[in-house]
Amino acid sequence: MQLIDGNQIAKTLIAELKAEVSAAPGRKPCIALVRVGDDPASVSYVTKKEKTSAEIGITSRVILPPVTIPQDELFALIDRLNADPAVDGILVQSPLPKHIDEVAGFRRVAPHKDVDGFNTINLGKVAQEDDTGFVACTPAGIMELLARSSVDLRGKHVVVLGRSLIVGKPVALLALQKKAGANGTVTICHSQTANLPALTRQADVLIAAIGRAAFVTADMVKPGAVVIDVGINRVADATKKSGCRLVGDVDFAQVAPKCSQITPVPGGVGPMTVALLMKNTVKAWRQNNQKTENLKAET
Amino acid sequence: MQLIDGNQIAKTLIAELKAEVSAAPGRKPCIALVRVGDDPASVSYVTKKEKTSAEIGITSRVILPPVTIPQDELFALIDRLNADPAVDGILVQSPLPKHIDEVAGFRRVAPHKDVDGFNTINLGKVAQEDDTGFVACTPAGIMELLARSSVDLRGKHVVVLGRSLIVGKPVALLALQKKAGANGTVTICHSQTANLPALTRQADVLIAAIGRAAFVTADMVKPGAVVIDVGINRVADATKKSGCRLVGDVDFAQVAPKCSQITPVPGGVGPMTVALLMKNTVKAWRQNNQKTENLKAET
Repeated sequence: MQLIDGNQIAKTLIAELKAEVSAAPGRKPCIALVRVGDDPASVSYVTKKEKTSAEIGITSRVILPPVTIPQDELFALIDRLNADPAVDGILVQSPLPKHIDEVAGFRRVAPHKDVDGFNTINLGKVAQEDDTGFVACTPAGIMELLARSSVDLRGKHVVVLGRSLIVGKPVALLALQKKAGANGTVTICHSQTANLPALTRQADVLIAAIGRAAFVTADMVKPGAVVIDVGINRVADATKKSGCRLVGDVDFAQVAPKCSQITPVPGGVGPMTVALLMKNTVKAWRQNNQKTENLKAET
Repeated sequence: MQLIDGNQIAKTLIAELKAEVSAAPGRKPCIALVRVGDDPASVSYVTKKEKTSAEIGITSRVILPPVTIPQDELFALIDRLNADPAVDGILVQSPLPKHIDEVAGFRRVAPHKDVDGFNTINLGKVAQEDDTGFVACTPAGIMELLARSSVDLRGKHVVVLGRSLIVGKPVALLALQKKAGANGTVTICHSQTANLPALTRQADVLIAAIGRAAFVTADMVKPGAVVIDVGINRVADATKKSGCRLVGDVDFAQVAPKCSQITPVPGGVGPMTVALLMKNTVKAWRQNNQKTENLKAET
């Protein structure tokens, strides 16, 4: 069994992005990080994104509206960032307060600056296999993990556990694409699936994204399978100072010995999500520069 | 074995739409049918759409630019239709001549008038389960056939043969939705799938959309399965005056006796596609009227 080390792979990707950004003359990439209110998880996520940006040479502009900001003011703020030529990417940290329509907020971000990949157009582009769009960071991170672990999905049966908009559906569409590394046969299972173990046991590659601690047990996994664990679940643990520990959707101790490759939690998919946000930001910057070049050439 | 009669189901749906349109006071729905050039299949499709519109009470505005129309002129024409408040739906008949970027053409149609459901935003909305959008007519027609044949997908294994943007992917996303009638477990197979018969034999509902005549044979189908045949293939037949006949992707004679329900070709999915275009047009008109009402209420 081989461990897929997400920390290491994310580090490599971040180093590649840093090299690209330092080599480029002129304006560096810029991401606007919008965090509404002080939700502790959001504070920690945005801090992590800020730090990783700095490491790569991406300028981050952190904007912290109060939790009471009216929806129209937040949308006006997003509109200003959309119109600002110095901003390449915009991230509106989820969750937004209840009085704001979150999906409408994500749609407000201009598609060409939507480095989170939550805009409807970017989701549609994943289905259309149109590479000009942005893929949501977690599914894109899973594909990057697989590619950098020499897992080619062609002719493989990929079983996705979970049909969420953020992970299950886009990763299924990505695995299905007619692209090198993809071309998988894809099954999507969920809470309504009958006889789930019979399906997961057929998986050459099993992607678990259902948010239930240690849900995938050894009897559900085919010997030699590649297992990607997207779950991040907090379970009580009296031996820890915090009183809890993080576990994935897979019962790692039981399942790992059966696998050819498996991601741990933490240290698997998690670190890739931030790395892919950075990759999307550099892509937005590259496309933004290209557009400026084209405009110059025209005039 | 029960035949799923697409002609009959389409007729029922068309009668329902006609009843709704005749009962409504004021302006009737209007669809713009844009056909570039004189491709014989396109001529016949557009004529069929025109006739069905008339039957329901939908005004159709047929626009026939010459095959030589430059792309920018065609796009300007689409822009004018987008801006015209009297037009509820716009259909740009495929295929377009080679000098025109077809995907860009489909994207040019405003999302709220895109009754063909090919705009990237409407595809994204299918993934987001956002019912304000328009679903492409063939996959929407398949779901309507299933619903009106009392096939509930909940907990069923739906195997889709084919990963096209027009049928395979959207029908997979629809079967997967958290909606009454849907909630299926979905597998998508295609040309790169290994051991295909072992997968299709697991299907409670098999949707064949690969465009290969009589590809699905009896050994590939589970006894009691529901089979939806999307294929329309022309094969040589000396006994026919035209020299050919239409067959589906399923070997009907062999497969039908094993099924609980099956669609024939022709007379299965085919008639539903035009019926769903009409359903989308009436929906666009309803939304357009609602918008006008809202504007009036505001002033």
